[in-house]
Amino acid sequence: MLITCSFALASDNSPLQDFCVADPNGPVLVNGFPCKDAKLVQANDFFLSGLHLMGNTSNAVGSRVTPVTVAQLPGLNTLGISMARIDFAPWGINPPHTHPRATEILTVIEGSIQVGRSRSLSEEYWICNAIAIVGLSSQNPGVITIANAVFGAKPDIPSDLLAKAFQVDVKVVDQIQSKF
Amino acid sequence: MLITCSFALASDNSPLQDFCVADPNGPVLVNGFPCKDAKLVQANDFFLSGLHLMGNTSNAVGSRVTPVTVAQLPGLNTLGISMARIDFAPWGINPPHTHPRATEILTVIEGSIQVGRSRSLSEEYWICNAIAIVGLSSQNPGVITIANAVFGAKPDIPSDLLAKAFQVDVKVVDQIQSKF
Amino acid sequence: MLITCSFALASDNSPLQDFCVADPNGPVLVNGFPCKDAKLVQANDFFLSGLHLMGNTSNAVGSRVTPVTVAQLPGLNTLGISMARIDFAPWGINPPHTHPRATEILTVIEGSIQVGRSRSLSEEYWICNAIAIVGLSSQNPGVITIANAVFGAKPDIPSDLLAKAFQVDVKVVDQIQSKF
Amino acid sequence: MLITCSFALASDNSPLQDFCVADPNGPVLVNGFPCKDAKLVQANDFFLSGLHLMGNTSNAVGSRVTPVTVAQLPGLNTLGISMARIDFAPWGINPPHTHPRATEILTVIEGSIQVGRSRSLSEEYWICNAIAIVGLSSQNPGVITIANAVFGAKPDIPSDLLAKAFQVDVKVVDQIQSKF
Amino acid sequence: MLITCSFALASDNSPLQDFCVADPNGPVLVNGFPCKDAKLVQANDFFLSGLHLMGNTSNAVGSRVTPVTVAQLPGLNTLGISMARIDFAPWGINPPHTHPRATEILTVIEGSIQVGRSRSLSEEYWICNAIAIVGLSSQNPGVITIANAVFGAKPDIPSDLLAKAFQVDVKVVDQIQSKF
Amino acid sequence: MLITCSFALASDNSPLQDFCVADPNGPVLVNGFPCKDAKLVQANDFFLSGLHLMGNTSNAVGSRVTPVTVAQLPGLNTLGISMARIDFAPWGINPPHTHPRATEILTVIEGSIQVGRSRSLSEEYWICNAIAIVGLSSQNPGVITIANAVFGAKPDIPSDLLAKAFQVDVKVVDQIQSKF
Repeated sequence: MLITCSFALASDNSPLQDFCVADPNGPVLVNGFPCKDAKLVQANDFFLSGLHLMGNTSNAVGSRVTPVTVAQLPGLNTLGISMARIDFAPWGINPPHTHPRATEILTVIEGSIQVGRSRSLSEEYWICNAIAIVGLSSQNPGVITIANAVFGAKPDIPSDLLAKAFQVDVKVVDQIQSKF
Repeated sequence: MLITCSFALASDNSPLQDFCVADPNGPVLVNGFPCKDAKLVQANDFFLSGLHLMGNTSNAVGSRVTPVTVAQLPGLNTLGISMARIDFAPWGINPPHTHPRATEILTVIEGSIQVGRSRSLSEEYWICNAIAIVGLSSQNPGVITIANAVFGAKPDIPSDLLAKAFQVDVKVVDQIQSKF
Repeated sequence: MLITCSFALASDNSPLQDFCVADPNGPVLVNGFPCKDAKLVQANDFFLSGLHLMGNTSNAVGSRVTPVTVAQLPGLNTLGISMARIDFAPWGINPPHTHPRATEILTVIEGSIQVGRSRSLSEEYWICNAIAIVGLSSQNPGVITIANAVFGAKPDIPSDLLAKAFQVDVKVVDQIQSKF
Repeated sequence: MLITCSFALASDNSPLQDFCVADPNGPVLVNGFPCKDAKLVQANDFFLSGLHLMGNTSNAVGSRVTPVTVAQLPGLNTLGISMARIDFAPWGINPPHTHPRATEILTVIEGSIQVGRSRSLSEEYWICNAIAIVGLSSQNPGVITIANAVFGAKPDIPSDLLAKAFQVDVKVVDQIQSKF
Repeated sequence: MLITCSFALASDNSPLQDFCVADPNGPVLVNGFPCKDAKLVQANDFFLSGLHLMGNTSNAVGSRVTPVTVAQLPGLNTLGISMARIDFAPWGINPPHTHPRATEILTVIEGSIQVGRSRSLSEEYWICNAIAIVGLSSQNPGVITIANAVFGAKPDIPSDLLAKAFQVDVKVVDQIQSKF
Repeated sequence: MLITCSFALASDNSPLQDFCVADPNGPVLVNGFPCKDAKLVQANDFFLSGLHLMGNTSNAVGSRVTPVTVAQLPGLNTLGISMARIDFAPWGINPPHTHPRATEILTVIEGSIQVGRSRSLSEEYWICNAIAIVGLSSQNPGVITIANAVFGAKPDIPSDLLAKAFQVDVKVVDQIQSKF
């Protein structure tokens, strides 16, 4: 089963040379990453091992994302593509989230997955017992997990604002915030 | 006071001719809108009256957004820009939200506004008693109000999934969903 | 009244990370601006006060633009959006101009405005007695005021060339150039 | 001699298939042009004869531009490139102009050319006795010849506004307008 | 093992609305595809079954690509992402090729793969006994298999031109052309 | 005769300021080039002499490309355009090639040219006795000459892989590789 999973904007990363391997420790910060000296580029800048390893799903949502973005694989810089492996424990979920800089495509390698997405929602959620591989149209797609972003923001979003936004009692907001 | 309010992706709309006034009722649907016949374009396709009128803030969040996007002003098609007026009742809020296809800039015309945004959160929220004008870098910026999108999705996101994602009891989820 | 005011190209600024606050004094110049160290970013990088102040319109054209671009508000870097306030004295004008890197949308906050634009002209002009807010689809939209650019260029455009281009006597060109 | 001649924005035309030959007479207007049925595409859609012919320079500015854009060569659609031949009579000029959707590069094939451009001016002007070939980064670059656009606009820009913008007497404006 | 496999340009597909499911049989052809009426969009437009099936590798190169692009999955339209499964027989190869509109990222699901790419070559080749999943940064990445494109072109590239280009005897060219 | 010669992707280079003259020797490498200090920019950064000189066509393919890209003309940086002169000896050829980051348009200045391109081939080839000028939609278009890239790769593509890809004997591959 293969599913496209996001309404988000395709990212716009245009390489202006054959490659620009990310140099995350360079003296200057730019939009994206500056490039490593081409003479120092090695095959390893384009390879990464470890995506065959199962992610640890012993957590509150029963799933684990192993990302392969420009942060893990510097050769991805400027190329506008990344991947991830997602492992789900039985009844694990992928909580509602969005990628601010990428669209996503997902294929199930093993197991099965229930997917949901409504028109008013550009986030997707999933209930799964599966291993999945996703492709993302950015080397740095970003991720906003709604629950963390809203109830675990640092500093806190004021609880009376969230109470009004979610139309619940302030106590409920306080209770949810305490979990994040 | 002028504030930039979003981490989201700038939209990428490139006009390929002098103008392409949206023809929303044409026989074909395309990415964006097809263009009205240039001979039928009128000054009114580029003008809109009404942004001087106060929006009705008698609602649960005490605020009202009056958008001026390509849906209201067909001349905006392909131009990659839109505006909105936001009215806030005293203690009105702009609930946490994101724009999937635009960045946003906001200026307060009257009154005062408290704004919050955390690094892990590309949505912004505001507590206000104000009139504000926002500029958005897309003719069709979109908006996802988190609370509506998560708890008011049609069809419903399963409540046990949301309970796990927000780490609350299913009853709390059911209660919130009943409000949306 | 809200008007869209330019045929120009939407600018293409794609953030590749959550934010890249402009560091205009860094050791390296790049397309746009390099980014400030994220650990040094402050709320003030995204806020600017002063747009409530009336601009000084005591000048030859009776108008004043107060821009809020990446030059004034470093948090705008890579976000593809900016704003400006325009004050007009009675019968002030906004002389014919273009923005080489942005489209523009304008709303009148107070007063009235007469706007003109012809199909062969991507510049707009206006006669006004008003305060207006404009949104622009670039963090660095640029502005070319035609009269200044043509007759006030440094070094001068040769007056015989301008005489031929504008089909006037060289004396007229010399006279206009002396004003700029 | 080869010169780059414009500060303007590079146009953003991204083909999403191998080719999309313009169908300018199709039933629908879109940003750019819809595509001709691929089965009807012919070699001639990608070829144009005539650029070896000298342009007629018997006109007020002593130059002639022979454009090769998507309007002349439908195969250019979506490809983001065009060309032009410019012929100059002795002391012919290329009057100040801008291309709203393209950057330009120029090479002199025969003769010589004096070129000027100032920092405050994204238009270029030239005094020439030459044949030149230009490349433009859009299939539909557009051109705004300043003098025509300002003094030959239809309907007229009010002469008192132009008098104020160019700081000349209204009579001078009327006189220039009468030439265009 | 995860490898990035192409120097090619990231494609630039920017959705201007929440979704634009491809309508390949519509009355008009545009850059990309026109959109299906949103009221007729179904969950199946975003789902595809069959990527779990092994591709038939009984062919001259011992490999099979099963693509999932906008041609197979209409919901991918405007989203700038696609996937493919590649099956390799023992000692199967992925012949030198390029994707004109996408960058590529590849992960090996099963087996092992030997990959090569040189700096002067934006194509990659591989010798494998494996199943791989690739992500591509375009909904319509295109593929040019060098050997087919050069020696199997219809109409034929003249054999004396290829003889000169590849510095071999015309007979060798004729022999290779006869295979494609 | 004017021909458009490539299916390749239009490059996406968006200047974010009036100019950004390439500084190839700066302390930092970025996507494209960092900019020279604007105070040090000279007219010569935008001019190049020498395109009137005939290229040396005494080589295996009987043609010579004289490129004018950002490498030769630093003012082209971020402008998304370049040019080249191509000289052909009688019966010279332009061997099959692609530009990974640009589309191309070509005009024959002198002589005649036979051009071929098949639908399955985004490369073009030509048999010529001519001087031609090409425009390219990138300041750094890149070029992949198929024969060199495949048979002259460093390190070598294994000859048994090429034998399978081109369906020839390994000896033929070894023979071709020895020429490059």
